[in-house]
Amino acid sequence: MFKKVLVANRGEIAVRIIRACREMGVETVAVYSTADKDALHSQLADEAVCIGEAPVNKSYLNVVNIISAAISTGCDAVHPGFGFLSENSRFAEMCQECGLKFIGPTAEMIDRMGNKSEARKTMREAGVPVVPGSVGVILDLEEAVQIADEIGYPVMLKASAGGGGKGMREASNRDELRHQFAAAQTEARNAFGDDAMYVEKLIVNPKHIEFQIMGDAYGNVVHLGERDCSIQRKHQKVLEEAPSGISPELRSQMAADAVKAAKAIRYESAGTVEFLLDKDGRYYFIEMNTRIQVEHPVTEMVTGIDIMKEQIRVAAGEPLSFSQKDVRIEGHSIECRINAEDPEHGFRPCPGTVGQLYVPGGFGVRVDSAVYSGYTIPPYYDSMIAKLIVHAKDRQTAILRMKRALGEFVVEGITTNIEFQYQILNNPAYRSGAFDTGFIENEM
Amino acid sequence: MFKKVLVANRGEIAVRIIRACREMGVETVAVYSTADKDALHSQLADEAVCIGEAPVNKSYLNVVNIISAAISTGCDAVHPGFGFLSENSRFAEMCQECGLKFIGPTAEMIDRMGNKSEARKTMREAGVPVVPGSVGVILDLEEAVQIADEIGYPVMLKASAGGGGKGMREASNRDELRHQFAAAQTEARNAFGDDAMYVEKLIVNPKHIEFQIMGDAYGNVVHLGERDCSIQRKHQKVLEEAPSGISPELRSQMAADAVKAAKAIRYESAGTVEFLLDKDGRYYFIEMNTRIQVEHPVTEMVTGIDIMKEQIRVAAGEPLSFSQKDVRIEGHSIECRINAEDPEHGFRPCPGTVGQLYVPGGFGVRVDSAVYSGYTIPPYYDSMIAKLIVHAKDRQTAILRMKRALGEFVVEGITTNIEFQYQILNNPAYRSGAFDTGFIENEM
Repeated sequence: MFKKVLVANRGEIAVRIIRACREMGVETVAVYSTADKDALHSQLADEAVCIGEAPVNKSYLNVVNIISAAISTGCDAVHPGFGFLSENSRFAEMCQECGLKFIGPTAEMIDRMGNKSEARKTMREAGVPVVPGSVGVILDLEEAVQIADEIGYPVMLKASAGGGGKGMREASNRDELRHQFAAAQTEARNAFGDDAMYVEKLIVNPKHIEFQIMGDAYGNVVHLGERDCSIQRKHQKVLEEAPSGISPELRSQMAADAVKAAKAIRYESAGTVEFLLDKDGRYYFIEMNTRIQVEHPVTEMVTGIDIMKEQIRVAAGEPLSFSQKDVRIEGHSIECRINAEDPEHGFRPCPGTVGQLYVPGGFGVRVDSAVYSGYTIPPYYDSMIAKLIVHAKDRQTAILRMKRALGEFVVEGITTNIEFQYQILNNPAYRSGAFDTGFIENEM
Repeated sequence: MFKKVLVANRGEIAVRIIRACREMGVETVAVYSTADKDALHSQLADEAVCIGEAPVNKSYLNVVNIISAAISTGCDAVHPGFGFLSENSRFAEMCQECGLKFIGPTAEMIDRMGNKSEARKTMREAGVPVVPGSVGVILDLEEAVQIADEIGYPVMLKASAGGGGKGMREASNRDELRHQFAAAQTEARNAFGDDAMYVEKLIVNPKHIEFQIMGDAYGNVVHLGERDCSIQRKHQKVLEEAPSGISPELRSQMAADAVKAAKAIRYESAGTVEFLLDKDGRYYFIEMNTRIQVEHPVTEMVTGIDIMKEQIRVAAGEPLSFSQKDVRIEGHSIECRINAEDPEHGFRPCPGTVGQLYVPGGFGVRVDSAVYSGYTIPPYYDSMIAKLIVHAKDRQTAILRMKRALGEFVVEGITTNIEFQYQILNNPAYRSGAFDTGFIENEM
C-alpha cells in the first residue's frame, strides 16, 4: 500500500480522498491555491502545500507545481479526483516518469477513451452499440452533411476531445447543421485546443444510464450496477440515483456491454461506461469516463463497496477485493448535488461566506461536503459545495428521506439550489420514474 | 397510520422520532421546557408546545401538561422515546384513556418487565436462564444473607424498580452485604419511591449482550440480532456495536431465548432483551427494556431496518413488515455516545454554548445529534448531545472509520468525551474484541 498520497484536487472530492486514505492508514498531502488556504481539504489532510494563484491554470492545473509538491513531501502516489487533471494522459505519464503512481488508469487507456471519436471506433469494434453516426473524426462540413443525410436528422455535433457539454450543437436539418458546424468547431478549439468533430444521431429525450466499473491489473473487470443520471441541466448532472428502473433483462444486457467496453481497453481502476437509453429500450454507448465520478456514492450506498478505497488499492497493485458474484444491490440511493447557485436567476454561481450551517443527519443520510460555518466559497471554481446522499429500502422511501433531509439543510449567507432539488423530488413525473434528460427543461 | 404524533421527549431521540414521522408523512408536535425553547427538536417539529419549567418533574415528567398538549394540538398518538415517561405504565394507561395511542407496549407489559424481580420470575418460568439469586423480592436483610450464602459471593443487590445503575450495590462477603443493604434500599427509595430489593450472584466482568426485538399485535416476534454494549462506565453504556463476536451457535441459542422472553409476555413494539455472558459462555437474562434504546442505530445499520418507523407502524396496528428470515446482518456498526462531559475531571457534565461545530460525514458515517452551532446546552438534562455511528464491511474497518470520524469532529465551546472515545478505539484490548464490562475501569 502507498505510504503517502498527494491529493491533486479540491472541494468535496479532495475530502473524500483524504477520508478514504485516513481509514486505510495512508498519509495525505493536500494542495491548495491561494484562494483555498482555508478550504476544508487543506485543513483535513496531514500536510498541505500551496501550489499557486487562484486561477486553475496557475494551481490545480499546474502540473509542475503539483508534481514538485508530491516529490518534496515524499509522496509515492497522486490521486487526481475528477475534473482538473484526472483525464489528462500527459499528467498521468509525468507522474509515472517521476516515480509517482497515478491513481487511475494508464495514459494509454485515458487517451483511448478521452478521444471520443476514437472511443466510438473501439466500442463499435468490440461489439458495443454506439449511437449511429460518423466513424472517426469528420474532416469538414461536407462530410458532416453527408453522414447526417444518411443517419437522418436531428443530429448532434460533438467535439472529439469534448466533455462537460462544450463543443456540442444540435441540428434538426441540413441548414442548421451548416449553420452550427463552424460555431461548434470554434468552441471546441477554444475549450480543448482541438477542433476535431464527429456527428451522431440525436437520441431525443433518452435516459442517461451509466454503469460503474472496477478493473484491476490482473484483467478482472467487475460492474457495480447502474445509475440513472437523467436529471441534467445543460448536460450537467443535477441528481443521480441507483439503481435505475430498467428491467433485469435490460440490466444484464447493458452490464455485459459495459464490462465488454472496459475489457476492450483492458481497463484498470474505477471508471464509468455511459449509455443513452431511448424510448424503445435501445441503448447506445456514448462515452467512458476514466476516473472516479461525482455520483459514485449512490453506487457505494447500494453495494456497500467503498469505490474510493478500491480504486486506491488496485492502483497499489492489489487485485479487486470482490468478484462479480459478490456484488449485490440493496435498496435505493439518491444523490442531490448542492450548488452555491441561484436557480431563480439562470443558476448563476453564488459564492460567498457561509453563515449558520445545519447539515442533515440521521438514518440513511450521508453528506459529502466541502463547507463549514464561516467558510468563504471562492468564486474561481465549480459551484458544487456538497453532495447530499440518502439510502433507503426502496425508491419511494428514498425520495421521502431526501425530502426530509433537504428540508433540514440550512446554509445561511449564500444562495443554493436546495429548494430547486426539493421541487424536483416533488414533481410527479420524477416520482413516477417517467423522466428523461429533458426533465429539467420540460418540467421545472 | 397516525395523523399527528406528540413527541414526549427532547434531545437527539426527539429529533430521531420527528425525522421518522416526517418520512412517513406524519405530523409532529414537540414539547419543550422553558430551558429548551431553542432546542433542535422544538425547531424541527411541525409544532412545538411549552410544557413547563426546566426541572424534569415540571415538564418532561409532567404527565398532565404533556397529555394536554397532545389533546389541544389534535394528536392521535404519543411517542415517549427513552428515559422520562417511556417505561411509566401509568402514563401509557393515561394516554389510552385520553384516546391517544402510546407508541410502545401496553401498560401491563411495561409493568411485567419494569418490576425486575417479577421479570426474573416470568423468565425463569419461561425457561430463559436468569442469574442465580432470589425468586421475587427480598423482604429483609436476613433473607438476603440466606440467599447469598446459598448462591455464593460475590453478589449484587438490586432495586426491583431499578434502572440506570441506581440502587445497585456489590458485596463480596457477608459483612459487606450487611453493610450495603440499607444503603441500597435508601437509594432505591429515593430514586424510585420503592425499596423492594432482590439479590443476584455477581457475574464478574461479563460481556453485556442484548438482542433487539420487534413484536406486533398479531403475535409476531422477530429478533434483529444482538449488540455488544460491554463498554460501560458506572453501568452506563458508552460505546455499542453490532454484531458482537459471539459464535453463530451461541447467537442462535441466545436469540431463541430472547424471542422466548418477548413471547412470554406477548410483547408488542420495539424492545431489548439484555443478557450477561460470562467467561465460560454461559448467559443470563438480566432485564428487558420495553422501549426504543439509545443504541438502536447500530442494529439499523447492520440490518437496514428502520426500527423507529417499524415501532410507529406496529403501534398503529400494522403487522411487522418483515419476518425472521428477512433479517440479514451485513457488516459491522459502532456507535459512540458524544457527551458534554469532562473525562479528565470525573466525567462531570459540561453544559455551555456550542461555538464552531464541524460534524463528520462521508461514506458509512451517521450522526444523530441534538446540537447546532450557537446552541446552549442546558444544565438540567442528560449530557449526551450526539451519537456518532459508523457502518463498514467488518469490525476492523468500522473501528478505523470511527477513528477517522472522531478525528474530524469539532465541537468548540464545551468539553466533550470525543478524545476519550478515540482512546477506547485505540486500546488493543478493545480492538481485539477481548473486553468486558470492566473495560473502562480496568483499561482506561
